[in-house]
Amino acid sequence: MAEGVHSYTFRVRYAETDAMGVAHHSSYVIWFEAARVELLRDLSLPYTELEQRGFSMPVIELNVRYQRPAYFDDLLTVQTWIAELGEVRLRLAYRLIRERDGKAQVIAEAQTQHAFLDRNGRITRLRNHPDLQARFQELVHQLRGPA
Amino acid sequence: MAEGVHSYTFRVRYAETDAMGVAHHSSYVIWFEAARVELLRDLSLPYTELEQRGFSMPVIELNVRYQRPAYFDDLLTVQTWIAELGEVRLRLAYRLIRERDGKAQVIAEAQTQHAFLDRNGRITRLRNHPDLQARFQELVHQLRGPA
Amino acid sequence: MAEGVHSYTFRVRYAETDAMGVAHHSSYVIWFEAARVELLRDLSLPYTELEQRGFSMPVIELNVRYQRPAYFDDLLTVQTWIAELGEVRLRLAYRLIRERDGKAQVIAEAQTQHAFLDRNGRITRLRNHPDLQARFQELVHQLRGPA
Amino acid sequence: MAEGVHSYTFRVRYAETDAMGVAHHSSYVIWFEAARVELLRDLSLPYTELEQRGFSMPVIELNVRYQRPAYFDDLLTVQTWIAELGEVRLRLAYRLIRERDGKAQVIAEAQTQHAFLDRNGRITRLRNHPDLQARFQELVHQLRGPA
Repeated sequence: MAEGVHSYTFRVRYAETDAMGVAHHSSYVIWFEAARVELLRDLSLPYTELEQRGFSMPVIELNVRYQRPAYFDDLLTVQTWIAELGEVRLRLAYRLIRERDGKAQVIAEAQTQHAFLDRNGRITRLRNHPDLQARFQELVHQLRGPA
Repeated sequence: MAEGVHSYTFRVRYAETDAMGVAHHSSYVIWFEAARVELLRDLSLPYTELEQRGFSMPVIELNVRYQRPAYFDDLLTVQTWIAELGEVRLRLAYRLIRERDGKAQVIAEAQTQHAFLDRNGRITRLRNHPDLQARFQELVHQLRGPA
Repeated sequence: MAEGVHSYTFRVRYAETDAMGVAHHSSYVIWFEAARVELLRDLSLPYTELEQRGFSMPVIELNVRYQRPAYFDDLLTVQTWIAELGEVRLRLAYRLIRERDGKAQVIAEAQTQHAFLDRNGRITRLRNHPDLQARFQELVHQLRGPA
Repeated sequence: MAEGVHSYTFRVRYAETDAMGVAHHSSYVIWFEAARVELLRDLSLPYTELEQRGFSMPVIELNVRYQRPAYFDDLLTVQTWIAELGEVRLRLAYRLIRERDGKAQVIAEAQTQHAFLDRNGRITRLRNHPDLQARFQELVHQLRGPA
């Protein structure tokens, strides 16, 4: 958190590779989601708890730029930060990196946009959830992105 | 149906392959499920309708024997039949084949066992669902397996 | 093709849904790829043949806008067209629709960008592959997008 | 290892759930593979190294008994041990457990059978790979299964 990003480290699974010998481009989408879930947990906003309150944040937009291939068994890190916190939506930014020989290679960069929905699947304003709003506003300061 | 099996034909997707250049062994499990869904639809027991009635048939046991690799873009057929219809469970058998040069190659053989559950996730006897029971009993005669 | 798009129709699989009861957002990425593979096949440029020539078109950028949820067993159609054909890359556009009561609902819109790579994974110009270039240029006229 | 099993702990991902609100039965197959990869790494037989030597161990048989549902975000452990080491094949056993209130619940039990293949995809005897044979024989003693 010191660096303004949340970090989530994982291994590329064999099932996530494809016949080109690299991680399939759909796997990245799942990794970013796993990173998002860990970010919320580490920040005391576990996704399971949000769901119990009837608050959800489905992905409404996704952008990924694939820069280098990732391989089976690579140890990768997703760095995540808040690109924009709005009244009815949130935009997260991601950088997927591989440490090699002490240097970080960027594998991919991405953004996801999320809508805030209530129990009935209708758009809800963050100000209707004061404790979540307070928590998210703190995060904006903590997770400003890489320096 | 004439042959005692239900047939479902599909293409192997790129995302279903792995770094060995073949279809990943977990993909087969998804294909057998897709075949099962088509079988139920073709037999006028669509899974979505079963779910609406609160009847479900989760997989409680799975066995797969992998005999030959399957490749990206292969046109494969799952032949499905009823191995055993019990009071509280159903056993389905599958044969995954590839037509090549007019001959059918067996890629894999499998079985899944399913429990009958009611709306509350409790085991339910088929006789409590007379119309389903009648329909399933007909199927036992139609889907006896390959000659 | 008459309408300037290629159409690929498929069913949402159970394995593609998630605990929100809708198709998971990563599944769309796999559907767009399946549509792309069928587009190339229908246009006599099967992907397996491109690969044999050592020509590949990995995804280097992906954008998806999710507009409505898709559900298990939905019969969906991906409409695909060529957004831009460059010397070293291709941009495809997609519209995912569901027919309901005779009307087409847009579920998602997307774009993928692809780099042209040779056998050694290096960027290759389309003009180095005259027959592919001719075929792709025809496609630009056929697949201009929905009217 | 003290207990005769290798342990691999992980979180259930959202993408691994389905519309029944539980982890999809195909996800387990991927978790067992991830456990297998970690087992080999922890035992100084990393799968990437085996592959570089041209030695592979594809799954030729799979059996899973699903006993309790697993849920999104569950922290699960795969316990793996060697059920049988043959001259041309290996059988691994798995137990998937969830710790809850200090007690371990069994979620599933499974076995996979693997063929030993050489660089050309032909069956190879373990005795043709003396160092691997020695290493695997040690493992048989270490990984005898739960007491």
